[in-house]
Amino acid sequence: MSRIRFALAQINPIVGDIAGNARLIIDAVSEASENSASVVAFPEMALTGYPIEDLAFNLDFVRESMSGVDELARTLRTKGLGDIAVVVGYIRESDETSHGGAIAHNSLAVLFEGDVVEIYDKQHLPNYSVFDEQRVFNPGKTDSVVTVGGVTTGLLICEDLWRDDGPTARMASLETDVVLVINASPYERTKDDMRMPLMARRAIEFGSPLLYVNLVGGQDDLVFDGDSAVTSASGELISRAPRFAPSILYTDVDGTSNQAGLAVRTHDLASGVEVGDLRDNDERDDVWDALVLGLRDYALKNGFPGIVLGLSGGIDSAVCAVLAADAVGAANVLGVSMPSKWSSEHSKSDALQLAENIGCAYVVEPIAPLVDPLESQLELTGLAAENVQARIRGVILMAKSNQSGHLVLTTGNKSEVAVGYSTMYGDTVGGFAPLKDVPKTLVWALAERRNERARRRGETPPIPQQSISKPPSAELRPDQTDQDSLPDYATLDAILELLIDERQTVAGIVNAGYDLDVVSRVAHLVRISEWKRRQGAIGPRISSMAFGRERRLPITVRRTSL
Amino acid sequence: MSRIRFALAQINPIVGDIAGNARLIIDAVSEASENSASVVAFPEMALTGYPIEDLAFNLDFVRESMSGVDELARTLRTKGLGDIAVVVGYIRESDETSHGGAIAHNSLAVLFEGDVVEIYDKQHLPNYSVFDEQRVFNPGKTDSVVTVGGVTTGLLICEDLWRDDGPTARMASLETDVVLVINASPYERTKDDMRMPLMARRAIEFGSPLLYVNLVGGQDDLVFDGDSAVTSASGELISRAPRFAPSILYTDVDGTSNQAGLAVRTHDLASGVEVGDLRDNDERDDVWDALVLGLRDYALKNGFPGIVLGLSGGIDSAVCAVLAADAVGAANVLGVSMPSKWSSEHSKSDALQLAENIGCAYVVEPIAPLVDPLESQLELTGLAAENVQARIRGVILMAKSNQSGHLVLTTGNKSEVAVGYSTMYGDTVGGFAPLKDVPKTLVWALAERRNERARRRGETPPIPQQSISKPPSAELRPDQTDQDSLPDYATLDAILELLIDERQTVAGIVNAGYDLDVVSRVAHLVRISEWKRRQGAIGPRISSMAFGRERRLPITVRRTSL
Repeated sequence: MSRIRFALAQINPIVGDIAGNARLIIDAVSEASENSASVVAFPEMALTGYPIEDLAFNLDFVRESMSGVDELARTLRTKGLGDIAVVVGYIRESDETSHGGAIAHNSLAVLFEGDVVEIYDKQHLPNYSVFDEQRVFNPGKTDSVVTVGGVTTGLLICEDLWRDDGPTARMASLETDVVLVINASPYERTKDDMRMPLMARRAIEFGSPLLYVNLVGGQDDLVFDGDSAVTSASGELISRAPRFAPSILYTDVDGTSNQAGLAVRTHDLASGVEVGDLRDNDERDDVWDALVLGLRDYALKNGFPGIVLGLSGGIDSAVCAVLAADAVGAANVLGVSMPSKWSSEHSKSDALQLAENIGCAYVVEPIAPLVDPLESQLELTGLAAENVQARIRGVILMAKSNQSGHLVLTTGNKSEVAVGYSTMYGDTVGGFAPLKDVPKTLVWALAERRNERARRRGETPPIPQQSISKPPSAELRPDQTDQDSLPDYATLDAILELLIDERQTVAGIVNAGYDLDVVSRVAHLVRISEWKRRQGAIGPRISSMAFGRERRLPITVRRTSL
Repeated sequence: MSRIRFALAQINPIVGDIAGNARLIIDAVSEASENSASVVAFPEMALTGYPIEDLAFNLDFVRESMSGVDELARTLRTKGLGDIAVVVGYIRESDETSHGGAIAHNSLAVLFEGDVVEIYDKQHLPNYSVFDEQRVFNPGKTDSVVTVGGVTTGLLICEDLWRDDGPTARMASLETDVVLVINASPYERTKDDMRMPLMARRAIEFGSPLLYVNLVGGQDDLVFDGDSAVTSASGELISRAPRFAPSILYTDVDGTSNQAGLAVRTHDLASGVEVGDLRDNDERDDVWDALVLGLRDYALKNGFPGIVLGLSGGIDSAVCAVLAADAVGAANVLGVSMPSKWSSEHSKSDALQLAENIGCAYVVEPIAPLVDPLESQLELTGLAAENVQARIRGVILMAKSNQSGHLVLTTGNKSEVAVGYSTMYGDTVGGFAPLKDVPKTLVWALAERRNERARRRGETPPIPQQSISKPPSAELRPDQTDQDSLPDYATLDAILELLIDERQTVAGIVNAGYDLDVVSRVAHLVRISEWKRRQGAIGPRISSMAFGRERRLPITVRRTSL
């Protein structure tokens, strides 16, 4: 009986950057080697980044990925790391082109002694939610089990594990010492509730421990949370990597190659490994960390030197500012207060207080001298006059961005995005929308929690209490509040959850106890603001029904409940 | 031997509007009845509109579609039209829910004497280009052949016809008198080059005439061109409906039920039918008509009372203004001239001339009094100062829209959209982008042709010659021209065609004879402007590689050639 050490390396690659991602892989193998690992596993498409979308149709890129693994194998050997088996996700050219033009497989390669010794192609291609894999990939047709150092190891890629048919069913009938699944599985608030029971169930079916390694990092609207884990053959969660950060999780596996039975044992190393049935994390911390990682990676991977945003004194911009400071450091954040003649005193003082709390740069640009000429030349009244104020603020922020190169944040939350409570080309201006998938009620909860975390650490709570407690207002006319035009946010968010996340109809929501007029109006607003969402900035997805590629609906549609 | 008349009714439904679409269907059946038709065929998903995207996950909608066909059958009988066999596309609930949550089939029903007498579910679901049908539908499993009035009729839906395997292969081995395929096939400039030879080939394979009925109308970014047609058993194109307009095409078919051989004959009625191998249309007319239909249906189906756009005196805004006038009538179009201190005299006079030529409303809003306070307060210079001019124009147009309810057009062309030659929240402001898929060189060609059509009709050519002939300029600084920052448009468009439509790499394009530096810069510009495209307005697709759902690429990507 042999015992070997597996390292599950959750890395943060950049889409398209094969050379850079290969360096991350080499560094991790090197580190794992120092910790006596015999096998190092990387996530799905670790070499190419994920998702690459239609870049999968680019034959040159596919071939660069293939030569990239070959070169990676050689480089590892050159560096004296050839005796470690490396399992790495990449893409490779398929034998056939599909009717739709797909030319590639979503694959893994096993590298050993300078060569690619095994290849496995993902068999189940997800084509729902945010995934379009049947569009861009061809499915694999064969299973793969490799024996490394006496340990018989079944290999799977992500969606393969989620389906009862095909490779999992066949894997369950094989004798494996361990099953390794490599993943690019994005964070969702409730995903652990699905992932962990699934891992337990499959481990029991396989009769072997299950090793799960997942990507980490932000990629446009997706945040990969890592959270690599090991489950015993009896389905017990044995060890787990940190979330939202690159990390290597080690586990030792006993092999029984050529023996019947399941004499496998998985246990943990002391160093750097978090163990436990469940982490005792407040869910709000996970959401916060996901938003920070999504924002940080969008800013850094796209080369922005900093972040600029408007500070209104309200809760959304306050939370966005703290997210920005947590993501790229307060020294790289510029807050702009843009008071109008309708802005309250507390708006200005709360914005200033926030900037002082987090220590970011802060400027004040009053908008009245800029809005007045427009109002007068264009004879603006009512909604048109309100909107011009928001649009001038957008112009100011974009000018600041043009001057500094900073990324502009748009601070709207999911509730506002849902019902179109925004001024197009006004407060919607920006390259990234940190709260796009965060309902207003959760924005408040995040603010409370972030302040609480600061207090626990002995720091000043960053978000002024008044920004949390005062009634929300766009302040585009005197004494305006959001509730002049919207139901209270607790009601609105509950209705939106049923309407959007659960795809219920107006009738169904009314049956659940909500007022028909209110529900109908909300559904109507959601429908007619689709054109706004189509032109909205991307933002990190934290739900299982985020606006964007996950919810594809027509603009032109004559029906209220979608 | 029996002879019966088929009517191919290309209608223009609205997505989601089952009741309204049913009325269109009933009206067409009634008209066909007066013309002695025994069978009336409607396009794919004529009852629901197409594409419905994720609305296919809405169980209530799916069931409304099913009860909608039942009610349609009953209504037709009530109106004395029950003896006509009606073939209509709709969606219906499938027995199983797919792993991805799909609950519906893309189906057709045959209605007769008040009942649904046959159902066929589409077997091949396109999941490439603009189509996501494997996401939202489940495939059918059985073929369908019905006999109506002695005519044995094979039934197919759209993609079924395009694939060599499955239903077409089996249909070829059956004895059918005719094959009817119902479609929702969007216009592309070169699609006839594919559709017509495909129809000929399949008709020969089937050994029977092929009847093809296609949707017509604009739906968001897609334009369905109708172009329903009949091919003889020997593959000859026999008759063809008009393009870009609702129409009924009649054809008589001889039935040989229970007989061997192919004693089928298809011929045309005199009235309302255009016959010929190929229409002698200038391709620019098709493109123009597609753009007009796409714009008209977007405006009308979304209830806009009119259209507002900026008139710069340049070619793009001139072409957009004429498209708008052709789409909704010049009386419903407002042109806004927004001269700056850098605007040339000809810009102002050409804009005025255009407005006079087409007879639309016209106002002048100088921007200097609005830009100056911004320049001075924000200390703007260089690019920031240039952009503010464009953004103030966006603010003006949106204010006009807020005041009138008009749809704002953004006038950028495909070449500009490709390389990001635009000011975000400036000239990109608008709900619809008529030229989004039209390269600059084609914009000029369309302008010339539209003027030529006007001259032939004895009308004033609408587009001032100077707008066509002068060098393009954004006029954001003195003596600026587009070619200060871009290669000449003939070169740019040729490179973009290779890079985007043909997905060639930089190396491949250089091999085709273009300068490495130029190609690299263009590829770089295309990559870094993806974030702009994500926030861009939709516009009618006329190519087989339009920006939007057809070309899905990450914003965050570290690679030049995508």
